[in-house]
Amino acid sequence: MQYPEPIAKLIDSYTKLPGIGLKTATRLAFHTIDMDEDDVTSFAQSLVSAKRDLRFCSICGNLTETDPCVICADVTRDQTTVLVVEEVKDLMAIENTGEYHGLYHVLHGVLSPLAGKGPDDINIESLVMRLQKNEAIAEVIVGTNANAEGEATAMYLSRLLKPAGLDVSRLATGLAVGSDIDYADEITLIKSVEGRTKL
Amino acid sequence: MQYPEPIAKLIDSYTKLPGIGLKTATRLAFHTIDMDEDDVTSFAQSLVSAKRDLRFCSICGNLTETDPCVICADVTRDQTTVLVVEEVKDLMAIENTGEYHGLYHVLHGVLSPLAGKGPDDINIESLVMRLQKNEAIAEVIVGTNANAEGEATAMYLSRLLKPAGLDVSRLATGLAVGSDIDYADEITLIKSVEGRTKL
Repeated sequence: MQYPEPIAKLIDSYTKLPGIGLKTATRLAFHTIDMDEDDVTSFAQSLVSAKRDLRFCSICGNLTETDPCVICADVTRDQTTVLVVEEVKDLMAIENTGEYHGLYHVLHGVLSPLAGKGPDDINIESLVMRLQKNEAIAEVIVGTNANAEGEATAMYLSRLLKPAGLDVSRLATGLAVGSDIDYADEITLIKSVEGRTKL
Repeated sequence: MQYPEPIAKLIDSYTKLPGIGLKTATRLAFHTIDMDEDDVTSFAQSLVSAKRDLRFCSICGNLTETDPCVICADVTRDQTTVLVVEEVKDLMAIENTGEYHGLYHVLHGVLSPLAGKGPDDINIESLVMRLQKNEAIAEVIVGTNANAEGEATAMYLSRLLKPAGLDVSRLATGLAVGSDIDYADEITLIKSVEGRTKL
């Protein structure tokens, strides 16, 4: 025997989400039936609206309702610096610190030969075009993740952009603030020694 | 800085689901934006439809599109036996074995004094009414979970229904088929000795 079709379809929809298997999907579907009708309606609307009303900024690749996005459209920001990140989530994390006032560029991915992702599969061409067109930009900060793929992408970007006379820098690697040295992994410790700062 | 409103609302909707925190909700929301538009639309429709088109069977409490449900409406089933379960999921699990051909009654919960759930908070009154009205029913099998609350509920039902002359039984507890004795917990082992069957 099958569940009635409406709930079977809902379970099927939930299983399409990443990390959600059949058991969890079933639990979520039954929870949905117990929810307020208003909450379910607003959930359904927000799904459709997120898909329909959002686009990627044609300049920087940020997720936005308007094109260009509010960051690219903000002339009070430092127009000379571009921070390159892998994903919109990374942009948001840096933006929420409130300490960076330059521009961004979202790659929507990272170089990953093992996953078959080369320079043409991520937003690098639009970055190069942007830097060629916009002479105000003098520094590119590479803010890819501090793992193998993020480092490889940073190296690639550095070799690509330095010959054009741009300052290319990389976010510092080292001990996380508040962390204990004896819990840090070896590579982080080595990096923190290499990148030591004068007091 | 906040995410654009459509995605912020979607993240908020996802966090209302059980077991989904802000990080997971954000991941799911970004995944939604990457999904096919058709999949998103069908997800939204299935949410609304599951809430709108499903009801609980007025006889047994099963989840259904029609009232009474297909099980209650099926006159070829054994009308003399009612299996009482906690949730629709339990009914579905037993139904999927294909070996039980009687009727069901879904309590939608279990007696739980610690959680403040008494007999009036679950579907017991409708079970009593049903048994009074329908004289064909001769046996009630209590299929609540094999934990403290399920056992307490089984005891309660047994004391409530036996005086009315009904056969009240309980699903067997013991070793799960395929399991190793040395991995079984003590209480299961004791139960399996107590409930031993003649060969």
